[in-house]
Amino acid sequence: MEYYSKQIGNLIGALSRLPGIGNKTAQRLAFHILAMPPKDVRELANAMTDARENVKCCRECMTLTDDELCPICSNAKRNHKQIMVVENSRDLAAYEKTGKYTGVYHVLHGAISPLNGVGPGDIRLKELMSRLSRLDEDDDEVKTEVIVATGSDLEGETTAMYISKLVKPTGIKVTRIASGVPVGGDIEYIDEVTLLRALEGRTEL
Amino acid sequence: MEYYSKQIGNLIGALSRLPGIGNKTAQRLAFHILAMPPKDVRELANAMTDARENVKCCRECMTLTDDELCPICSNAKRNHKQIMVVENSRDLAAYEKTGKYTGVYHVLHGAISPLNGVGPGDIRLKELMSRLSRLDEDDDEVKTEVIVATGSDLEGETTAMYISKLVKPTGIKVTRIASGVPVGGDIEYIDEVTLLRALEGRTEL
Repeated sequence: MEYYSKQIGNLIGALSRLPGIGNKTAQRLAFHILAMPPKDVRELANAMTDARENVKCCRECMTLTDDELCPICSNAKRNHKQIMVVENSRDLAAYEKTGKYTGVYHVLHGAISPLNGVGPGDIRLKELMSRLSRLDEDDDEVKTEVIVATGSDLEGETTAMYISKLVKPTGIKVTRIASGVPVGGDIEYIDEVTLLRALEGRTEL
Repeated sequence: MEYYSKQIGNLIGALSRLPGIGNKTAQRLAFHILAMPPKDVRELANAMTDARENVKCCRECMTLTDDELCPICSNAKRNHKQIMVVENSRDLAAYEKTGKYTGVYHVLHGAISPLNGVGPGDIRLKELMSRLSRLDEDDDEVKTEVIVATGSDLEGETTAMYISKLVKPTGIKVTRIASGVPVGGDIEYIDEVTLLRALEGRTEL
């Protein structure tokens, strides 16, 4: 890239290392940034460094946040006895966007994947168990429920199975989100495994 | 986005204001940045602010660069009498990637577009003319050539026409890059205007 001067080349190089950003997109972004008001560029740069430097895991649910407790865990209106276990903070955001879930979350930061060398000890299962044992202590009439919302791929299913084996002996209710035909999905284009799951998980009308 | 803490929300917001980056992509990028080593994040942020703060137009060809002269204009091996006029620095890079062009460039930073309120005075035509008059002064046997490589859309064509009218009276040779069927293009899928251009611009074999 000798046809770009050093700093412009650096910027394009740094941008193209981001996921899903190829060389062409990096160029377009770089020239957009070069045309932005310097104030906006500083804001963007600061947003990056600030977020990166202050990011930590929520003390309760392990999601990425910049406080001790994330906005959801610190919300008294949420049902803190209903815990949805998700693989990452983006999955949490996806469920939050539905606007209907009133419980809290637990973010595993991954899924068990022996092929990739990710074992049960590498994701935040220990934190989930200690959180559940703390919930168990304060006995009241509301029952704790763990909703396993890991993905429906091999890793997600393995993780779900593992969590169920781990949690069930404690007497806490464990549920799994339904797997089936997505809304608006055309039956003829859906894979066999999903169709079988939809059949197995049928509900009475 | 109350389900993201303030700084993560800021980062996603700042990223999603970049062109071609929607909310989903911004989220993915943000979580990638949060997982990057802090040093790399600082490097990326510095690459942005440094490039933005030091960017200027090359004294000769007006391309964006961080020195007085861009790497191409300061290269003595290039033919400084052959000037390719392009709309922006990305178009320059596209021609540089061919590796075959040995002349220099002139970057207009736009194209004449009356509909968008861009007139001849808004692009770097004045700089092109003063550059040509300077070249004209040192009379030697090598003739100056202006290759107009603006786009083949309405704005690009208008600009090419305007440049030709401006430069021709000075006696300098003006050429226009060929318009026609792209290499690998399937004739049946190419629009009529391009096909007509290809016919008009036919060359003897």
